[in-house]
Formats: sequence, C-alpha cells, structure tokens
Amino acid sequence: MDTLVVVGGDAAGMSAASKAKRDDPEMEVVVFERGEWVSYGACGLPYYIKGEIQSLQDLVSVTPEQFREERDIDLRTGHEVVGVDTDERTVTAVGESGTVVQPYDHLLVATGAAAVEPPIKGIDREGVYTLGSMSDGKELREYVGRARAEEDLEQPDSGPACRYLESCSGTVGVVGGGYIGVEMAEALAANSFEVHLFQRGEQILTQFGTDIAETVLEHLREQGVRVYLGSEVERLAGGDTVEAVVTDDERVPVEMTLVGTGVRPRTELAEDTGLELGPTGAIATDAYRETSAPDVYAAGDCAETEHAVTGDPTYVPLALTANRHGRAVGATVAGTPTEGGPVAGSAAVKAFDVEAARTGLLPGEAREAGFDPVSRTITAKSRAGYYPEGGEVQVTLVADRDSRRVLGGALTSEYGEGAVHRSHALVGAVTEGTTVGDLANYDLAYAPPFNTTWDPILTAAKVLGGDL
Amino acid sequence: MDTLVVVGGDAAGMSAASKAKRDDPEMEVVVFERGEWVSYGACGLPYYIKGEIQSLQDLVSVTPEQFREERDIDLRTGHEVVGVDTDERTVTAVGESGTVVQPYDHLLVATGAAAVEPPIKGIDREGVYTLGSMSDGKELREYVGRARAEEDLEQPDSGPACRYLESCSGTVGVVGGGYIGVEMAEALAANSFEVHLFQRGEQILTQFGTDIAETVLEHLREQGVRVYLGSEVERLAGGDTVEAVVTDDERVPVEMTLVGTGVRPRTELAEDTGLELGPTGAIATDAYRETSAPDVYAAGDCAETEHAVTGDPTYVPLALTANRHGRAVGATVAGTPTEGGPVAGSAAVKAFDVEAARTGLLPGEAREAGFDPVSRTITAKSRAGYYPEGGEVQVTLVADRDSRRVLGGALTSEYGEGAVHRSHALVGAVTEGTTVGDLANYDLAYAPPFNTTWDPILTAAKVLGGDL
Repeated sequence: MDTLVVVGGDAAGMSAASKAKRDDPEMEVVVFERGEWVSYGACGLPYYIKGEIQSLQDLVSVTPEQFREERDIDLRTGHEVVGVDTDERTVTAVGESGTVVQPYDHLLVATGAAAVEPPIKGIDREGVYTLGSMSDGKELREYVGRARAEEDLEQPDSGPACRYLESCSGTVGVVGGGYIGVEMAEALAANSFEVHLFQRGEQILTQFGTDIAETVLEHLREQGVRVYLGSEVERLAGGDTVEAVVTDDERVPVEMTLVGTGVRPRTELAEDTGLELGPTGAIATDAYRETSAPDVYAAGDCAETEHAVTGDPTYVPLALTANRHGRAVGATVAGTPTEGGPVAGSAAVKAFDVEAARTGLLPGEAREAGFDPVSRTITAKSRAGYYPEGGEVQVTLVADRDSRRVLGGALTSEYGEGAVHRSHALVGAVTEGTTVGDLANYDLAYAPPFNTTWDPILTAAKVLGGDL
Repeated sequence: MDTLVVVGGDAAGMSAASKAKRDDPEMEVVVFERGEWVSYGACGLPYYIKGEIQSLQDLVSVTPEQFREERDIDLRTGHEVVGVDTDERTVTAVGESGTVVQPYDHLLVATGAAAVEPPIKGIDREGVYTLGSMSDGKELREYVGRARAEEDLEQPDSGPACRYLESCSGTVGVVGGGYIGVEMAEALAANSFEVHLFQRGEQILTQFGTDIAETVLEHLREQGVRVYLGSEVERLAGGDTVEAVVTDDERVPVEMTLVGTGVRPRTELAEDTGLELGPTGAIATDAYRETSAPDVYAAGDCAETEHAVTGDPTYVPLALTANRHGRAVGATVAGTPTEGGPVAGSAAVKAFDVEAARTGLLPGEAREAGFDPVSRTITAKSRAGYYPEGGEVQVTLVADRDSRRVLGGALTSEYGEGAVHRSHALVGAVTEGTTVGDLANYDLAYAPPFNTTWDPILTAAKVLGGDL
C-alpha cells in the first residue's frame, strides 16, 4: 500500500489528495497543512471583504471534516512541514502534539505563494494589509466593518480627505494595479471608502495589453477611484498606524493601505530539500509535475509550468492550474501517468461594472519570447446593433507576423456582456496554434441577443488578418 | 475591368459585392435584388414582432442608398433574374423598366432560402403566416398590433381559449419547434397571446440533443407555452381564416398560426442554369464556393458547405456562413483566392429567460456520420458557488470513442449566464480536432464572477474523459 504525502492543503494539495484517493482507495493519503483552512477559494476574498459573501466559511468548498470522513484523507491541519529527507523518503512535520516523521512513497509539495512585500518603508505599520490568506481576508473585513461603524457614529463627509464621495468611510490606499488591487478597489469603494490606487508603471493590469488596461483604467476613474500611474510608493508614513502614502511627488493621507504587488512562490522547503528551481524562481517540474527528486512532485502556486505558446517554463500562479495540476499528480501517483497540461496565462477580472480577460502572449511578452507580434484592437457591439440591450466589446488580438499564428489576446466589456466567456474561444486558438485566418473562419454561434453576425472575436481576427 | 454580377441582395450577396469593391475599386459590381430590402437582419424579425425593435428599418445594416452612393455598387432592387447564360456569360433580369441583359465575368448566385411549406391542409387560409422575409415580419407585427388593439377595446380574458393568461390578446398556434418556433413563441407570449406550439417529433430544437432541448422545453412550459410533442399537424381548419389547429388527437382553436418548419434552398435559378446540386439538395460548391460552372459562385442559404468535423457537404443556412462565404467570394473574384471555411453547425437561440447553443455533431448526427459517439451531460454553476449571483449551465459534450476527438456539444443556461459565449470554446475544439483530454486541459480564464475554477466546459470534458 503506497503512501502519498502532501505538503499544503489548498487547491493543488487537496485536488491531488482527493484524486489519488478516488482513483486508488487503497492508497494512504496524508496532508500536512500549516494553518486551519484547507481547500478555500482565495479568489473570493475580495467579494467577502466587499460584503457580498457573508461568511469566510462560504469560501470553503470542502471542509476538513469532509476530507477526513467522506474522502478518508488523513488531513493534519496545524502541522508545519519543517524537513524532507528524499533519501529516507520521509517528511518531518511539527504540530501541537509534537514532531511527526512521516514516510512517503510519493510526495507533493504544494506550498503555494506568498504576497510579495515590496521594499517600502513603513510597510510594517498597523493598518497596512496584504491579501493572500483567509486570515488576511478576515482582518480586512473586520477593518471595513469597524470603519463603517465609525461612519455611522460620526457624520459622513467628516474627513478632509473624503473629497469625492457623498458619504465616506475613510480614505484608503491600494498599492498595486494588478488583479488584487483592482478587485480590492471595487470592494473598498463599494463600502464608501475613498480609494487611492498607486501603480508603479504607466499601466494597470499589465498583462492585459495597453488598450484593454486603458479601458479598465477609465472605468475605475469614472467610479471615483483615484489612480496614480508611474507612481512608485516610497514610504507609508505614520506613527504606529499608517497615516499617508508617500510617493516621489505625492503625499496622500490614508487610514489604511492594502499592498497588492503580486506573489512569489513559497520555495523555502523545496530549496531546503534540494529541489531544483527553474528560471522563473519557482520549483522546476516536468510535464507530470515531477521535480528534480524522484517521486517528489510540485504543483500549484509554488511551481513552474510550461507555456502553451512558447513551451518554455512560466510562472502563472492561478487557481485553475493549481487544481488541474494537483489532480494530474493525484492521477499519476494512483497509477495513470497524467500530464498537467500547459498554461496559457488566461485570467479574468471584474472591476466595478466592467469585465476583462486575457490569454496567451500580449505584444510585449510575444516580443520577449522571440516572436514578431502584430496586434490590433477593435471595438464592436456585444449584441446585434438593433437589439434593445447590449454594449461594446473591445478585443486586442495578437499574432505572429510570419506564421500568422494567434499568440494571444485580451477583451473587455461591460459586466455581463461576455468579454470573459468570449475569451474562451481564444484559449483554444492559442493552444492549438490556430492561424488568424482560421480563427476568422471559426463558426461561432450567432443570434441577435448574444452577438453580431460576426462575433467581436471574429471581427478582430478579420481586421488583424488584413494587416498580415 | 471585370464585372461581378450578384443575384440576391442579402447577407451573402451584399458581403461579396462590398468586399469585391473594397478589394478592387475598379471592378464593376451589379447586384440584382428581387425585392426592395437588402442586407437585412432577418434573425432580428422575432424581436421586431415582439416589439423590442421599433422599426423594420432598424434591421437594415446598410441601406440601398449607402450601397449605391458610399460603396459604388450598382444595386438594382425590384429586379428578378430570370435566366443565366453561362456560355455567353450573361444574366437576364426583369425590372419595372423592362428586361436587362447584363454580362458578367464573375457571377454569384445568392438566392437564399424559402420557408418550407409542409403538406398541411388549409395552410393557405388567412391568418397563417411564415417568417422568412421582411414582409412576413411586417405582416406579423401588424397582426400582433391589431390583436393587441382589440384586447384594449374588449376585455381581457374574453376568449374561452385564453385559459392560462390573466389578460390575453388571443390564442395562436405555432407549428414547428425549431429556432423560429421557439423565438416566435417568446415574441407572441410577450404580447399576451396564449401560444400553442406543435412539434412533429418527440423533442424541440432537435439539433441541440435531448438533454439541452428538454431543459428549454421545460422552460417554455413554465412560461405558459403549451407544447405538444409527437404532434403532427394535419389540418388548419376554418373558413377564409384559420380557426383551429388539428392534429391526430387535438383540435386547438386559434386565431392565427405561424408555420416555422424550416427552410429549403432556393435553387430554381441554379437548376435552370444547369448548376449541379449536391447531396443535400443545395447548390454544390467547392472550397471557394465555385459551382460546377466556371466563374459562377454560390453562397449563403442557397448553397452547400463542408462540415468542420466530417468534411462532407452539409446544408446549414445561417447568417454567419452567408456573410463569411459571400465575403470570401468577393475577395476571390477581386484577385485573392479565399476559402470560405467549413461550418460547424453552430447556432444559438434565446427562449424567454434561457439561452442555448450547439456546435458540431450531437450523438444522432455523429452516428450518422460513422462515428461511435460517447456523450455526457453535466450541470454546473455558472459562477463561483459562493458568488452572490449566478445560476446553472448545462453542457452536453460528445466525443468519438476511439479517437477521443471532441465531435460537438450543446449548452444551456439562464439568459446572461454564458451558455452561448461558452460554446465558442467548443467551436475551436470541434474545428481543430481536439481530444477530450486536451479540452479538459484548456486554460480557460477564471474569476468568481464568471465561473467556477473549472469552467462548466472543462467539467464536462473531465467527466466525459472519465467515460472514455
């Protein structure tokens, strides 16, 4: 009877554990999780903080009890793995009741990612938050709740910083204009905070290409978010508690600041174990997510993957990959070697009343990967022009000049007008190496309540094809 | 200077004319259109009749004047082509001012489709309508307007037939449970008609597979539409005007009946000209839409196309194909040989508050085409389970047992929950010959407001993959 040991009880870890147990009920599956939460939807935290989700518990898809009782997985929460011996094939974990040495036949390292702490002075002050874990979410929700309560006691419009809102819970800073920054800007603004968002570069949502990012930026500003571009935060000023965000040319008084400047793979355990890291700094793995050590796998936000377009190692720490690769490891160790599959870097984000998605390589990334990218952005109606509802969809499509291969794309639309679901069509094209001409000939379903005869995706392909 | 002559001024014809003129402004382009309307969105007629679109003119994307003045196309409305001489390379057309003999270098036959008139007794009575042309739409809208006016004069609930509605404009029959039947059931019910829909077979929307069709059927019934399955209409009884729909075991009193039992290609001119028809009964064409006669093309609802999965001739008279193939012919005759591209039989329909789409081969069609199809239908959440809004998406996915190739699929969801746009991902898979395993590994964009971590498409692929 084989034993699978998993380090880390979130998406990758619990997917592997569940799949291995389902495919081989005889297998002993032991999961060590440092914290108390397992298998939770961290992507839902902004909506919990916003107040649209009532309980942290709602973000948990399967509880520890269900894993233990229904899935017969030996899940040990509150256990931190402090060492792996790949010669002896053992894992050493420390929990409340002491130290455990657990032998393994197969080991999965699924230690996830940690929020990057940028070198900003004063980042340790009270009132400075990151958003990576359930406890981060809990703290932020509590902060929002407290601030809103004060608003009820005092009068709205009381602070000089609340210049843009009729009633104001307070003024907050958001450092970073990626997914987390954008989603948290929405969550905080919805709770009547005046939000100041600081982005180091000249564009938010850098992976979405300039045009789509510009549309989302305009919308954020329409919604009252103060966005500072090209604005490197130097210092979070204050006493015990943060009082202002200071950049090279601004000093914005704030009562709280969220730092959302990306994540880095948690590779400490892997490094201590002697597992090779790849060029991205995450744990190197092969197509089966096996590391440099035999029978030791790595999956999820701590591991590298291969890119669907370039075939090169890439680091895209997102939920679907963690789930899919964890599941593949589970199937593999249970006896059916299963590749995890490449990632296309697909991602989606909602920002107030707009949605956006991206996949593959946008022009900058394409050039870096050695392609000669040609890119076009079109704007088209989301439903038939004569149909009473609907809005616009903006599509950026990128292809390689010589091969005409579709390399990537990004879309945005009003929320509900289908930018994200339409991006699914591009994922296939990017993954299959479809040419722009063949994409333009895709027979996408049409009816007036859903699109124009040529769906915006097809219009983009037609227009880009004309440039090649 | 070459001359392109086009017979028929709707989607295929005007797309070809416009593209040829754009690519080669020197080309003389003459279009003969029998009626007065050109380039209109017939797919919008149900929404015009429903009352959501105010004017027939709104369905026209480009007016005759714009074609003539802005695009320099010699558009002759009110001209019926009565003969083609492929030896002399001339077309003979009859208009108000007499007979014209027009030479051509390239000829496009784009004569469209006609509503099938099934062999039902009494189908010629007053009050029996079909919906294929703008004038059909106009008549139906006028009928709806008159009936609603009477309702205002008399009292609602006046007719004994109005059993299901609080206020009732009258009772109407719809013969046929395809797109037109379903869309018109919505349009009429929205105008407070009691709608009785008669479907010959045991399933509406036959091309969508049994499970998706069943979901739409249940919804129609919830909305108060009386649907009769396995119900062959034998007679439309009455005097001058229709008074009842009579099947082998029902006699339903009605004041109006819409017959929507499909369309057939208009091939009379092609046959007179000696153009070969294909196995489907539509005009046979090659990849460039050229017919059996040199320099004579056929595109749109009168012509055959090749199927994306089987490569065999198929007849799918839908708007996108007409536009795309017309455009390809325009490019070809202007000097850039351009294939029209295959069709996957993709289609979308809205029925009250649900939407549905299909593409490729559903099980029955797959078997007919010589595959050994395996099919699964799954139901999944349309957004993250904890996200405050959202509903369900149902996905039927079909693959070939041996090759594991994705053959087709169908989806349904509440309107706005993305069944149709999600179907776009399947079009790529079907067209590219993707396996179920590779589809399950597609890196589809995920965020809680748009889907679960595994989009329903991926869940369907995972589940179906488990059966193979």
